Amino acid sequence: MRFDMVRSPSAWLKHMLGPTAYDSVLRDLEIWWEREGRVITDAVDRARTPWLRMFDSTGRRIDEILYPPEYWRMLKKGYKSGVLWRAFKDQSLEPSSLLIFLTSFYDCGLTCPYTVSLSTALPLSKYGDATVQDRFLNNLLREDDQVWQGATWMTEIKGGSDLGSNVETIAVPHGDCWQLTGDKYFSSNVGAELAVVAARPAGGPAGVHGVALFLVPRHRQSGELNYTIRRLKNKIATRSVPTGEVELRDSEAYLLGPVEHGIYLILEVLNVSRIANSLGSVALAQRAVADALSFAESRIAFGRPIVEHPMLRHQFERRIHDLEGAFALAWEASRLLNEVWRERVPYTDRYHLFRLFAHLAKYWTAEFAIQTAKWCMEVHGGLGVLEEFRVERWLREAMILAIWEGTAHRQLLDALEVIARKQVHRSLLKTIGNGSSAAEFMDVMGDIDALLQRPRDEREYLWEPLGARLAKVAADALRDRLLSMQTAGHR
Amino acid sequence: MRFDMVRSPSAWLKHMLGPTAYDSVLRDLEIWWEREGRVITDAVDRARTPWLRMFDSTGRRIDEILYPPEYWRMLKKGYKSGVLWRAFKDQSLEPSSLLIFLTSFYDCGLTCPYTVSLSTALPLSKYGDATVQDRFLNNLLREDDQVWQGATWMTEIKGGSDLGSNVETIAVPHGDCWQLTGDKYFSSNVGAELAVVAARPAGGPAGVHGVALFLVPRHRQSGELNYTIRRLKNKIATRSVPTGEVELRDSEAYLLGPVEHGIYLILEVLNVSRIANSLGSVALAQRAVADALSFAESRIAFGRPIVEHPMLRHQFERRIHDLEGAFALAWEASRLLNEVWRERVPYTDRYHLFRLFAHLAKYWTAEFAIQTAKWCMEVHGGLGVLEEFRVERWLREAMILAIWEGTAHRQLLDALEVIARKQVHRSLLKTIGNGSSAAEFMDVMGDIDALLQRPRDEREYLWEPLGARLAKVAADALRDRLLSMQTAGHR
Amino acid sequence: MRFDMVRSPSAWLKHMLGPTAYDSVLRDLEIWWEREGRVITDAVDRARTPWLRMFDSTGRRIDEILYPPEYWRMLKKGYKSGVLWRAFKDQSLEPSSLLIFLTSFYDCGLTCPYTVSLSTALPLSKYGDATVQDRFLNNLLREDDQVWQGATWMTEIKGGSDLGSNVETIAVPHGDCWQLTGDKYFSSNVGAELAVVAARPAGGPAGVHGVALFLVPRHRQSGELNYTIRRLKNKIATRSVPTGEVELRDSEAYLLGPVEHGIYLILEVLNVSRIANSLGSVALAQRAVADALSFAESRIAFGRPIVEHPMLRHQFERRIHDLEGAFALAWEASRLLNEVWRERVPYTDRYHLFRLFAHLAKYWTAEFAIQTAKWCMEVHGGLGVLEEFRVERWLREAMILAIWEGTAHRQLLDALEVIARKQVHRSLLKTIGNGSSAAEFMDVMGDIDALLQRPRDEREYLWEPLGARLAKVAADALRDRLLSMQTAGHR
Amino acid sequence: MRFDMVRSPSAWLKHMLGPTAYDSVLRDLEIWWEREGRVITDAVDRARTPWLRMFDSTGRRIDEILYPPEYWRMLKKGYKSGVLWRAFKDQSLEPSSLLIFLTSFYDCGLTCPYTVSLSTALPLSKYGDATVQDRFLNNLLREDDQVWQGATWMTEIKGGSDLGSNVETIAVPHGDCWQLTGDKYFSSNVGAELAVVAARPAGGPAGVHGVALFLVPRHRQSGELNYTIRRLKNKIATRSVPTGEVELRDSEAYLLGPVEHGIYLILEVLNVSRIANSLGSVALAQRAVADALSFAESRIAFGRPIVEHPMLRHQFERRIHDLEGAFALAWEASRLLNEVWRERVPYTDRYHLFRLFAHLAKYWTAEFAIQTAKWCMEVHGGLGVLEEFRVERWLREAMILAIWEGTAHRQLLDALEVIARKQVHRSLLKTIGNGSSAAEFMDVMGDIDALLQRPRDEREYLWEPLGARLAKVAADALRDRLLSMQTAGHR
Repeated sequence: MRFDMVRSPSAWLKHMLGPTAYDSVLRDLEIWWEREGRVITDAVDRARTPWLRMFDSTGRRIDEILYPPEYWRMLKKGYKSGVLWRAFKDQSLEPSSLLIFLTSFYDCGLTCPYTVSLSTALPLSKYGDATVQDRFLNNLLREDDQVWQGATWMTEIKGGSDLGSNVETIAVPHGDCWQLTGDKYFSSNVGAELAVVAARPAGGPAGVHGVALFLVPRHRQSGELNYTIRRLKNKIATRSVPTGEVELRDSEAYLLGPVEHGIYLILEVLNVSRIANSLGSVALAQRAVADALSFAESRIAFGRPIVEHPMLRHQFERRIHDLEGAFALAWEASRLLNEVWRERVPYTDRYHLFRLFAHLAKYWTAEFAIQTAKWCMEVHGGLGVLEEFRVERWLREAMILAIWEGTAHRQLLDALEVIARKQVHRSLLKTIGNGSSAAEFMDVMGDIDALLQRPRDEREYLWEPLGARLAKVAADALRDRLLSMQTAGHR
Repeated sequence: MRFDMVRSPSAWLKHMLGPTAYDSVLRDLEIWWEREGRVITDAVDRARTPWLRMFDSTGRRIDEILYPPEYWRMLKKGYKSGVLWRAFKDQSLEPSSLLIFLTSFYDCGLTCPYTVSLSTALPLSKYGDATVQDRFLNNLLREDDQVWQGATWMTEIKGGSDLGSNVETIAVPHGDCWQLTGDKYFSSNVGAELAVVAARPAGGPAGVHGVALFLVPRHRQSGELNYTIRRLKNKIATRSVPTGEVELRDSEAYLLGPVEHGIYLILEVLNVSRIANSLGSVALAQRAVADALSFAESRIAFGRPIVEHPMLRHQFERRIHDLEGAFALAWEASRLLNEVWRERVPYTDRYHLFRLFAHLAKYWTAEFAIQTAKWCMEVHGGLGVLEEFRVERWLREAMILAIWEGTAHRQLLDALEVIARKQVHRSLLKTIGNGSSAAEFMDVMGDIDALLQRPRDEREYLWEPLGARLAKVAADALRDRLLSMQTAGHR
Repeated sequence: MRFDMVRSPSAWLKHMLGPTAYDSVLRDLEIWWEREGRVITDAVDRARTPWLRMFDSTGRRIDEILYPPEYWRMLKKGYKSGVLWRAFKDQSLEPSSLLIFLTSFYDCGLTCPYTVSLSTALPLSKYGDATVQDRFLNNLLREDDQVWQGATWMTEIKGGSDLGSNVETIAVPHGDCWQLTGDKYFSSNVGAELAVVAARPAGGPAGVHGVALFLVPRHRQSGELNYTIRRLKNKIATRSVPTGEVELRDSEAYLLGPVEHGIYLILEVLNVSRIANSLGSVALAQRAVADALSFAESRIAFGRPIVEHPMLRHQFERRIHDLEGAFALAWEASRLLNEVWRERVPYTDRYHLFRLFAHLAKYWTAEFAIQTAKWCMEVHGGLGVLEEFRVERWLREAMILAIWEGTAHRQLLDALEVIARKQVHRSLLKTIGNGSSAAEFMDVMGDIDALLQRPRDEREYLWEPLGARLAKVAADALRDRLLSMQTAGHR
Repeated sequence: MRFDMVRSPSAWLKHMLGPTAYDSVLRDLEIWWEREGRVITDAVDRARTPWLRMFDSTGRRIDEILYPPEYWRMLKKGYKSGVLWRAFKDQSLEPSSLLIFLTSFYDCGLTCPYTVSLSTALPLSKYGDATVQDRFLNNLLREDDQVWQGATWMTEIKGGSDLGSNVETIAVPHGDCWQLTGDKYFSSNVGAELAVVAARPAGGPAGVHGVALFLVPRHRQSGELNYTIRRLKNKIATRSVPTGEVELRDSEAYLLGPVEHGIYLILEVLNVSRIANSLGSVALAQRAVADALSFAESRIAFGRPIVEHPMLRHQFERRIHDLEGAFALAWEASRLLNEVWRERVPYTDRYHLFRLFAHLAKYWTAEFAIQTAKWCMEVHGGLGVLEEFRVERWLREAMILAIWEGTAHRQLLDALEVIARKQVHRSLLKTIGNGSSAAEFMDVMGDIDALLQRPRDEREYLWEPLGARLAKVAADALRDRLLSMQTAGHR
């Protein structure tokens, strides 16, 4: 049946992309998830927020995160499969994207550690001093259980959108490194051995240009903890990633790149996360569809499985069609990232096009994941709201995917900004605009050009539905192109 | 500011309906909620599913539900305010509707007990034998703490949509009453003293016409428990109503109405709940908007409160406009219920029109509540996904409102059926179709007539977007009418 | 039946003490507990550790403790009944002792806030500057809901026994007050408005004589929080008192008494708590006996209630006899406190006798509470280990009573020290040694004198069983005296 | 240092028993526990009671117990190591005893499944029909992951002591087997594939002689569930064994042994559990001592590790001495079981001696485990009552060990009965009475003989302290004998 490929993430990747160089890696990892991982991630979600053990019995601060041991096994599985080291070995982000997609089908929270580790390794490899790289980078790229993890901590208590005003962590030079003091309020993967952290060098300019990016290890050179974890946050979902609040107090740190480019480095980091978030959102939506499908095939009402009821069948068809579109959009964004991630300021037009895609994909796929997870719960009827059946988990996860790394508002406004400042929507047409939806595409372009004539406030006021149309038409066009490539038998 | 009325449910009711006969009752209840109830309901939600104490220490089965004591105080507050007794005293469901709306702003789960108590009292008063009424009805209508509660238990493990196949509870006559044996899988307000229960008289016809409605008290005439509670269900929300699984074993029961009308009685019961659910959904959406507004007024980004950012401001405006529409639709459905609830088989056209409204309102308002609660979380950014801030609660609640009493699929299909069989959409036009959206209305009507020409399966396949348009256009038209009535200064 | 007085704390007090000036106060409070408090404290224990809300939605640190609202009502009940204000109004600690005993029968955790509030008010009234007293004391003595609470925070992460080494919080003078910086690891009643805190004035001597006592309000004069709560501790019991970790950072503080007497003030504070702890332990043991009795009366085995089985009946008799002894010991200690609490360095012999009683009573009553709670669980058989029946709660509570304010080791060693240095055991004999157990008493005295001849290490090595005998014989003698006074009809 | 052997269960066994045939098996299992098992059992305890999934999404009853996957791995480890199959292969219970002891050091709850599996296999092998044995026994003795588990379900809601009155489950013959109907209230290891169950053949005599023992498989011959699990019980500890309530409804069952011997078979089953419970209690006490020791070595007060403080050092010495005694008593009981377990009614005197040991050991070791766990918490001071440090777990576990399989009351009374009826204390002297404590032993014997002259009620009234002395003197004597055998270098 034509719905079958939604049941397996590797089958779906084959459906959308044809064969890749990583098919056996993907297959092996999928087999592991089906045999062992599925029940582990269920148990981790069921156990809610892990405990934080702050002190050992001698009174020494340790800040240990108490997951069940199998959590660590599950986590390491992805690192060992190559979600990080393959990117550096093969000089391509493609394996990371594929493995993040596959993992997210089973546990989209778990891909956060992978993603932020990648978002740590990339700027370190790109902007870190040789000595700093020597000391830290290889730890992140290990292929065994001793692999280190990374993390990206930008947001403080006053909010994550307006970093220029809200980053209050101060950095002061100290010997051959810096010392950071401040509180990070949303610190994902808070148990990581390394983090990239936004901070404000003392005496620098106010606003966004006074913020720089630093590398902060978990331990000082003396071996002591370099910062403390105030608490783990009780999130409604993504319990596979410990999110905490971090208290930096004269914490040793290493500057990455020039101070005055700090905000660009931070945005580079965030954009990597947005791509991963987009892939994760699509995989999560696929999972929700797969679960809804299994249920609808086994649930009988009015004498037949409910999947055979016309309205529901139609919903499955539309849903899978749109899933293909969402995937195509996220994949295109990840392809572009793979092209441009080595760029530095000043960026090319290609980079700005990537930025547009990053925002559209983050926005559109998260929204799609939410609506799909909600629908999946409805398909399950009353069972959908019971903790016992766990389909409600997908909605919880999706809400976090939508909010992490910038909400829909943020993505839409940033997309509008890159359009307004760089006119990147023009090159969109070139890239994807000549399929069956070309007319609709032209219509959207016209409306955008008209919008750009209006005053800024008005523009923002009116932009949302148009931004949604842009994402939708791009997704549909990319879907058609991608599927026709598979039909044509090449890639 | 024009957003102000969203902060108070009584202010909102005044905004939409003008003065009512119950304004002081509403004001008093709102004051209680603001002073005491708000923190109680927070604590109840935080405590998750209550415990069920099955046995006392002597080994006697007791099935006691362990809420904190203040829960009971909060619950009784609504009964004492008149959510039930006023309906009978004033011979009007209007006070019930108003009080349910107001309560739902603070705790939409709590309105479930009120609603199912009403859904128990109504058929009991309409169809119960005199002796049965004498014995039970007044207990439900008490104005003090000793008031009894009702409950409505239809659904069994195989699902709630197809009652004809899935009600397997058997009823056999026994002396002057009946005995019921079977398991009810979703039993809301499971601690109630009385329940109306769907069961199948032994030897009757298969299918939906073999199902009848019974009144089942919590205790046998001997004083023993009349059934046992297998467990309380771990729902994701509406923790203010205990939902359980009930094991009926030769449980004493009283038949309501003629057996052969059983399914109609059951649907009458469900339709009362759907109206309450619609009002509750709108109130929940209002609450989410109110919370989003408070947050957006206090959160500063880029130098001003985020509520002043153009895109967000626009979203508030649209959201409140649509909230008015959702309210108008739900209110019209409740007005119609108040007109027709005394009808019996065979029903008038007015009753069928009510049915259409019940389905449209249930569907549309729940969907609106979900989308509004989701948006409220996004407005809160990262704080939105933390248990500590509790705005995620509204999405959990909304998901249950959407699924209880029939999912969107069910409502849409039942709406389609009443349209197809009774052509009730025709009278819609008469009632509400001559406002500013008349053209859109005519267009929808035309599409519906065209759809009705198609074969049944195709009809269902295509109906969803059209049903949504119908609900939307009806909501908008009713909103315009209602607001213009307020402007005109009468009601 | 002669067991009846164990069912009611006020009946027990009458049994042991005869009529008091506070009988109507006690009766009223007991009625409230039976009617309302019992189920509230159950719900509070069931809800486990409350949440700590650190920030409001604007990002301001607030450190609010999220108990259910009825918790606050229960807590205030004791203050309004006079657990604190009566001590100052009547210039006697007797009402505090009586009310603490009665409350502990229902919730011994709740008496911690009362006790530490008393332990704050006493040194404030005794050692505080006039201006400091003016500003703060009356808030603690209010008779309405606005009453402030106190707290006593000494212990840091390295442990509470050896304050000389382990208090690392530093105090520096700052204008008209001091500033404290350090972390307190066990901070009972962490939400209090005032605390007395051990800290080390900078530059002072090492060891125990460098520690002084300070008064620290929750808010700075500027209105900001004066310290932050790092977290609430997940204790196994006494969930009615929030215990947290406090981070003092330049926190405003007021010195109490002369620096060089700091350690004596701290010990005065601790000794007040030990008396309350002793009364609480006895009341808890009484409660466990009462619950065991109810169960044993209703549980049938081998054809009769198990309370009528000879072995169990004998256990009840012994248990209640020993309960009388434990009460008599705790009450004598509280009477002595009432005599000596106004003393300052240098203390009289009477004060040193009090110290011996404080240690013996703390040790003996806590041990008795543990053993009684354990036995109560065993009486309940399998039900005893189920959370549903809650008798296991008493053992959890008792374990905390035994450990708070110094474990058995600490009490025994401190008792030995006061014996060795002040020979206070001699005056014991005078006070209580001429009853039926005089011979045993003489024997114990002889053994103590022999022990004191040995080297210090050997003394400690051998002291434990002898200390236990001393406590037991004192308890028995005091019991006999107290009961004979009741029989004699005077007091 | 002479305390070292308490840190390792295999070292302890060597210390007490010298080399055994199973030393390499024990060492391998200990290594696994140290490397992997320790953190798994922590996580299982932290997760509290597992969930019970009653229905799958098609509405089929499944009663699946949701432990984290690693739980199952931990559980199977013991079976594969031979806790069950070795007993049958080697025709000796010694390996079971050794493995149960070792496992209990790490997780005494986990040994419940092993024990009840053994208690199922033994009567099945001894009393089962050939066809029943053929069908079931080998499943229990598998050496791989497919091994089945057993369970022993006797107790109903009215209590477990008086089985004659309180077993109300009825058995009726049905074809080639029986059908059981009734509710079991404490059903340990409720997920087992087989259970031995006490039930009352319809029409048989009242009282204890009307009860027989049946084998009940989890699935009917048709493949359906043979009974349902009403719920899992929220116990305070031993979360490694799921305890539930079972509803037997015409459940297929196979009679074991002759009906009229039923009560003897039940007691044989219980006595096996009591031996395992005794070994488990000693191992738990050892673990508590080991944890206390680690803490006391690392905690510094007054300038040195607290283990070096004289009083505490003395407590360690006494505690370990008594631990040796408790072990010796439990081991002697297990040796006797190994001698007599094949006996059937009528039993030899050796069997009755075993019964006395079973009761004394169950009573004494559980009491010792409680007191040791309590003391371990006190050694930890304030940390002892925090969930984070988990030493409070040992007290929770010990309380269950004391109550399971009969409380202290039960054991003492049953010991008294076997003494009174069979004069078995006489042969005690022969076995163990000629060591250093012979005089004390003779004294106890004399007191027992005197007691036996008294009327029955009086006897029970006075028995408790004497029973305790008997257990203590036996433990001490057996300890001396066992240790002198090790010193003598043989076994």
